[in-house]
Amino acid sequence: MTFPDIYFNSWSETYRRPFGAVRIGNSVYFSIKVDGVNILAVDLMIQKDGEQIKALNMLPSSEKEHFYYLKFTTEGNCGLYFYHFKVTYRDEQQEKTLYYAKAEDNYGGVGRILYDSARVEQYQITCFDHQDPAPDWYLDGVIYHVFVDRFNNGNHHKMVLNPKKNSFLYATEDDLPYYIRDNKGDIVRWDFYGGNLNGIIARLNDLYKLGVTILYLSPIFEASSNHKYDTGNYLRIDPMFGDQKTFDRLIAKTRRLGMHVILDGVFNHVGADSIYFNRFGNYGNGGAYLDPGSPYCDWFTFHGDHDHYNCWWNIDDLPTVNKEKKSYRDFIYESEDSVINTWSATGIGGWRLDVADELSDDFIEGIRHTLDQHIEKGERKVLIGEVWEDASNKIAYGKRHHYLEGGMLHGVMNYPFRSIIIDLLIGKQNARQVARASFTLRSNYPQDAFFANMNNIGTHDTERILTMLGDDEKKVLLAIWMLMTLPGVPCVYYGDEAGVAGGKDPDNRRFYPWGKENQSILAAFRSAIQTRRQDENLQKGLFYPFSIGNLFGFLRFQTKADYTAIIFNPSNETTNVDLSQCIDETEGELIGNSLKDLSFDGEQIAAWDFSIKKLKE
Amino acid sequence: MTFPDIYFNSWSETYRRPFGAVRIGNSVYFSIKVDGVNILAVDLMIQKDGEQIKALNMLPSSEKEHFYYLKFTTEGNCGLYFYHFKVTYRDEQQEKTLYYAKAEDNYGGVGRILYDSARVEQYQITCFDHQDPAPDWYLDGVIYHVFVDRFNNGNHHKMVLNPKKNSFLYATEDDLPYYIRDNKGDIVRWDFYGGNLNGIIARLNDLYKLGVTILYLSPIFEASSNHKYDTGNYLRIDPMFGDQKTFDRLIAKTRRLGMHVILDGVFNHVGADSIYFNRFGNYGNGGAYLDPGSPYCDWFTFHGDHDHYNCWWNIDDLPTVNKEKKSYRDFIYESEDSVINTWSATGIGGWRLDVADELSDDFIEGIRHTLDQHIEKGERKVLIGEVWEDASNKIAYGKRHHYLEGGMLHGVMNYPFRSIIIDLLIGKQNARQVARASFTLRSNYPQDAFFANMNNIGTHDTERILTMLGDDEKKVLLAIWMLMTLPGVPCVYYGDEAGVAGGKDPDNRRFYPWGKENQSILAAFRSAIQTRRQDENLQKGLFYPFSIGNLFGFLRFQTKADYTAIIFNPSNETTNVDLSQCIDETEGELIGNSLKDLSFDGEQIAAWDFSIKKLKE
Repeated sequence: MTFPDIYFNSWSETYRRPFGAVRIGNSVYFSIKVDGVNILAVDLMIQKDGEQIKALNMLPSSEKEHFYYLKFTTEGNCGLYFYHFKVTYRDEQQEKTLYYAKAEDNYGGVGRILYDSARVEQYQITCFDHQDPAPDWYLDGVIYHVFVDRFNNGNHHKMVLNPKKNSFLYATEDDLPYYIRDNKGDIVRWDFYGGNLNGIIARLNDLYKLGVTILYLSPIFEASSNHKYDTGNYLRIDPMFGDQKTFDRLIAKTRRLGMHVILDGVFNHVGADSIYFNRFGNYGNGGAYLDPGSPYCDWFTFHGDHDHYNCWWNIDDLPTVNKEKKSYRDFIYESEDSVINTWSATGIGGWRLDVADELSDDFIEGIRHTLDQHIEKGERKVLIGEVWEDASNKIAYGKRHHYLEGGMLHGVMNYPFRSIIIDLLIGKQNARQVARASFTLRSNYPQDAFFANMNNIGTHDTERILTMLGDDEKKVLLAIWMLMTLPGVPCVYYGDEAGVAGGKDPDNRRFYPWGKENQSILAAFRSAIQTRRQDENLQKGLFYPFSIGNLFGFLRFQTKADYTAIIFNPSNETTNVDLSQCIDETEGELIGNSLKDLSFDGEQIAAWDFSIKKLKE
Repeated sequence: MTFPDIYFNSWSETYRRPFGAVRIGNSVYFSIKVDGVNILAVDLMIQKDGEQIKALNMLPSSEKEHFYYLKFTTEGNCGLYFYHFKVTYRDEQQEKTLYYAKAEDNYGGVGRILYDSARVEQYQITCFDHQDPAPDWYLDGVIYHVFVDRFNNGNHHKMVLNPKKNSFLYATEDDLPYYIRDNKGDIVRWDFYGGNLNGIIARLNDLYKLGVTILYLSPIFEASSNHKYDTGNYLRIDPMFGDQKTFDRLIAKTRRLGMHVILDGVFNHVGADSIYFNRFGNYGNGGAYLDPGSPYCDWFTFHGDHDHYNCWWNIDDLPTVNKEKKSYRDFIYESEDSVINTWSATGIGGWRLDVADELSDDFIEGIRHTLDQHIEKGERKVLIGEVWEDASNKIAYGKRHHYLEGGMLHGVMNYPFRSIIIDLLIGKQNARQVARASFTLRSNYPQDAFFANMNNIGTHDTERILTMLGDDEKKVLLAIWMLMTLPGVPCVYYGDEAGVAGGKDPDNRRFYPWGKENQSILAAFRSAIQTRRQDENLQKGLFYPFSIGNLFGFLRFQTKADYTAIIFNPSNETTNVDLSQCIDETEGELIGNSLKDLSFDGEQIAAWDFSIKKLKE
């Protein structure tokens, strides 16, 4: 019995050209090496997302022995293609079949030979509609994510501004967050520290000095809760945070500092306690819950009586809106005085869309279309979505989303990078795995989106990085530097830079420890942010990850004459860089030679340390 | 078959002289009417509390037909006697026995004949050691009970003074109280409104104008909770309430207004979070929980490890103190710088002892002895105890207490009167029952104590009077007037005068509604307090309750030439006073004639109204 050896690497341009996502209508050149006798056929098995799979016969190369090739031209609407290979050969007078598909780890790059077609996991080609880069001010920037109630109280004497009736205020800013629940587990009173917009204004200079250029604010519109994802009125600043004048001052001051503000747009649901739903009668007699004649009635889906209605994750407090209704679309983005128009005209930099998975593609497209009309002094607005997984192929509610293929989101929150960073630092994945995981993301995302993702090592929805890394500051140091050097726009979750710890919500929402910052963590953030800001390669450079034993590293460059490379040692042992052991996922000579140029070879990197170098010819 | 008719009334001096409690060593004259043939013997069956019962043969009267009498001289230590009567007679050649004992309702006065000795409920004679009147300033006064955290915030800008770490502050003073518990039901964070001593000082003039002469403050010493019954340090004012200087100013200002302050002494247990126990290490390294060499170790009883110890009502947070330990007694009252000495020297008026039932008689006696050394400008201090039942015969932990028999408490919190008032107003008891219930208390208590009881219609431990009476202001009006006219010193629970409603704890501890007072209830309090203050009969006059159909009333007088009478109509119908229907529990002619003198006869009293009259010859 003999069988052919088959080899393909989706990340090597020898095998698949061009690299990564392609514009729809463009061609992809496939080559595969099939080394054996009695080869009857080599087929590219390819299907457009949701369509029938097709077998396309590949031709033997006239130039390279054992190679078969095919030029495949993408067509139709933007979206995904999936593919693998099928090799038919004769062995002992029988016709046999082998398959070549993604590796067992489900990442791209080098794959594996399979006998059983049922085990095939296909490679992905992302086809975008058009290039859709985020604005430069965003791509060049460093974001700071403020959970407004928890950041800073800018009031005279630290009095809490306009406290809400039947809520609780923390006695001191050092208190740990606590949800006040009844014995059914429902929150009965909201807890507030009293952070507000004046508090942010008071700290803008500090953030500016830290190197922050963009503020991403948790929702600021009127709402009952401390997080304000339960909007009460989209057209009013929550009075605990300030008023329109305070907001205008915030925008004016950020603009003077060259900073931008991204707002959190929560359009999938509203608060039960809202002008739209008004379950508790706090907004007069109107609202869908109280008034059958309310103009908001068709925004909601009631079942039988008014106490049963569609809500997000079955949380009564968050009735879901029917986003297909014209009156809702008018209100959010279509009409002249829509929510998006109103706030985008104030000078903000853009929006982050909460639970983007819950929004249909055309709803997001509508928002983006409106947003694109707002160009100030040549500057466009940015639109980012909350997606937790690889957004290039996200299916939500049985439907494939096309967030990143042009005309919708510029990028998404990059939780997969967070997982990669943490997995490497806690030893859950090794350097090679992390290189493959991160390269898979690069190859799946359209390049514009990949650079526009909002990278994080923690948000208001995750445990804090310090806690995730077992309070080990050495590991935090590496996490900070990865955040600031990986492709995508880094976003610092307020307080992470001060060394704030915290487990799951609500512990991840402690108040910022003014005057008690962890100075070594703060210094590391400051240094990493400055490095990021000063090196365009880190902002816009292509990304080539690699591994050398335990070491994880990557190259970033815009042109081959200007490299930046960083190598991390996520281990307890000082390690010498041995380039002969370097695994370059692209199989090219690019990485190894570049690292030689940078004289990495033989360099000693201490345990839990890193080395960063830049070569400019 | 014939049997004798027997009659006795413990409230009529014809049958039992003198009325009520007697000084030990004095005699009591008993008479009983036994109308029948073949009477073989009439015995007074009497026993000293805890001793054997004795049968004392009563002699036929030479003056009054059918009457038998006996002079009984009390002896030994002060305490209680219990008695009933036994009548032996011959009927159809057999010797038979009848008993005469307390009525079925278990009140004193007229009793009932029983065949079965097992059903006998005995009458009580309270024998006191010596007369022990409370100070005049107390007896003449009107008390105002302040739950300090909930009364008034005297701080500039209403900032909360020195809020405690990991506690919650109410967002607005209008918020309803709420305990923040974990899913086991334990309080995890204390809730505060921020009332403080400066807040009381700021309102002293208002209280003075209302007619208040005494403030009874909930505990003010350092403690974690909002109620402060979990003392952390007996020698320090809680910093949320103020400091020593604030306290001194409060005392100075009350003295200038002729007012007195009663402190809440919580000596049965301390807080787990205290300098003495220090479970959480908030008081350094000392304390019985942390330090085996702590001088406080023998104050507590540990079982095995330090996590198991005696505590009040199994509340971990309140470790019980061994009050028999000399070092504790020294600390509380015996040493020169004891708690009682320290605070009694500041100019306070006296103390209310929390959970007096848990304190041994000699512990209370020790406190009283120390307190009696503090006489300022001829004024003595008062000592009141928290007892919920008839304190004349209270058994706690299997032991009879002697609180009120001289040298211990001047009086107790009069919860039985509260029950009587509420029962009458909600129709649970009728006028006759209420007259009997209140007269029973009068006859059981030593007279000095009866006048020194701290009467209430609600406290921090009960539902508010407005809520108890179904929010019916008409009924509240009667309750206010009963409180102000019954014997004992009336105590107004802060906010009751403003018409604050509230169910059980914590709802009964709402913040005082400054500027939103119920004006009609406030006016009723003001008027009733002024009436009380201006009429010595209401402060010190003997008490004779009566009933006339649905009407409940009583006489108050010091001499027979100076009466005050009040008749309440706790019904939905206007009622004419028909004195021929008057039931005088003493069987004397006193009440009927007095009411005639006051021209009550035929007077019409509206539903839920009352009539008060004073005759001074």
